[in-house]
This record gives sequence, structure tokens and C-alpha cells, in this order.
Amino acid sequence: MPKLYWEDFNIGDKAVYGPRLVTREEIVAFAAEFDPQPAHLDEAAAVATLHGGLAGSGWHSCALMMRMMADGFLLDSSSMGAPGVEEVRWLEPLRPGTQVRLRTKVLDTRSSNSRPEMGLTRIRYDLVDEAGTIITTLTSTMMLGRRPPGAGA
Amino acid sequence: MPKLYWEDFNIGDKAVYGPRLVTREEIVAFAAEFDPQPAHLDEAAAVATLHGGLAGSGWHSCALMMRMMADGFLLDSSSMGAPGVEEVRWLEPLRPGTQVRLRTKVLDTRSSNSRPEMGLTRIRYDLVDEAGTIITTLTSTMMLGRRPPGAGA
Repeated sequence: MPKLYWEDFNIGDKAVYGPRLVTREEIVAFAAEFDPQPAHLDEAAAVATLHGGLAGSGWHSCALMMRMMADGFLLDSSSMGAPGVEEVRWLEPLRPGTQVRLRTKVLDTRSSNSRPEMGLTRIRYDLVDEAGTIITTLTSTMMLGRRPPGAGA
Repeated sequence: MPKLYWEDFNIGDKAVYGPRLVTREEIVAFAAEFDPQPAHLDEAAAVATLHGGLAGSGWHSCALMMRMMADGFLLDSSSMGAPGVEEVRWLEPLRPGTQVRLRTKVLDTRSSNSRPEMGLTRIRYDLVDEAGTIITTLTSTMMLGRRPPGAGA
């Protein structure tokens, strides 16, 4: 039985997950597999780029956010997935050695007319560094199963 | 010298990159690292989920799209990165054994007032299967360096 159902997410709810230390090795490994641009792969080449030094792929920060969501609450919930993401903004470079946290805020919650067994929860996710600076922010709507009668609160 | 500058992307331009075969192994490896939900990790557990069988993480399809973009044109271009992604829609499950392609279409192109050395190019990216069904679609605006005088056409 999942611990968290749609009913457990209310507008304005905030949480913080992590921390997680992002290493140079994982930044380079992700880049080598999925985003082999010089800024993400190689310190010397990265100096000449927009970021002025090695920085993780924007998609790597999204993947790390996903992992922190999963460990933070999703795997303990009645999640039925998400149809997508509204907006992703890569605001600051993801530097090696950063200790990141995932901050969440529930923006919206509504029941589903067509599927009474589920509800929709719109959440903003911010990946932040030690100082609270937002590295990446995204907003997504999650489909969650509703608490069945007798499942307890 | 990059081959492609901002001037080389025109509204309506279309291209197709790939193909790339997506294996069960890479789906499971990505999920184990970034998105350990049963639907992405384990065939038996996946049958009971929304997708009715093993399917790649939505973020995995985004990462694969990034790799196909990079190999397809980005590494040969004057790309200066992207501020983010407008919208990601996960329309169909990414099944193991699918041969995917990346379809692109230039939606918009404009010069930058504040930075005359660069231009902005808004592109829609569709990850499609063998039948042309869209698995994931996203739209993003890329910053591209403008062709310097004397760089040839």
C-alpha cells in the first residue's frame, strides 16, 4: 500500500529533499552518454564556453531531480505517472562539487472528472545549491491514485 | 569553425536524425540510476502499471533526444546553449527494441537585440518510432552564434 495518495498533497505544501553531492565524474559520465558538448565534458574546453567552466548537462539536472523526487516521495505514493512537463528553465550552471537539494511546492490540485479513481497534482520543483540559488526549475502535473475507502489516513 | 550558424536555420526547415535502437538494457540502466519506478525497471512489475509493460523513463527519452540532437547538428554548430524547454509531452511509452528517430522543425528564428553576435532559433523536436508515432515531443529555443564576416556560407 502506498503511503501517499492524491489527498495528501494540498495547495501550498512545501518540502525539501536531498541533499545529494554532484560529482565531476557523474557530470562527465552523463555528458559522454547523452550530451557530449565541450561545456559538459572537459574542463579545458569548458572554460571557453558560455558557462566559463565545466557544468552538467541541463538534462542531467532534470534526471537528478527525477531521482530525488522518486526517493523523496514518489516511490511511496500512488503515482500513476505524468503526461509531461510544462516548462524547464536552466537558470544556473550545475557545477561539480555542488550539494543539491530538491525543493517542491504544490501549485494546484484537482480531481479528475473522467477518472474518479485519480486526481491531478501540479507541482513546481526547484533544484537548488547550498545557498538556495535555483539551478533548474520545472513544473509538472502528476497523476495520483485517490485514497481507497479503508486505506487509512 | 562550426559548419552551422544561426543563419542556417530557417522557419519551416525540417530534418530527421538517427535511427537509434533503444535496448532493454539501457532503459533499465537509466531507470536504476535516475528513475527507479517499477514501470521502468522490471518487466513483471511493469505489467501492472499504467504502461502495461516495461517502458523507458520520460527523462530517458529526453536524454536520447539530446544525444541525437548533439550528433545530428549541434556539435557542428555555433550553439551557445538553451535557456530551457517550453514544454515536454510524453505521449507514448518508450518500449525496448524500438528504433527511434528524431524529427526536427524550425518554428521561429529571430536575431537578438541585446546581443548582436547571436540569434535565437525555436525548434520542435519529436522522438518517433518506426511507424512515425510520436513518443515524446518538446520545444526549445537555442541560442546560436551568427555567422562572422568571411566565414563562408
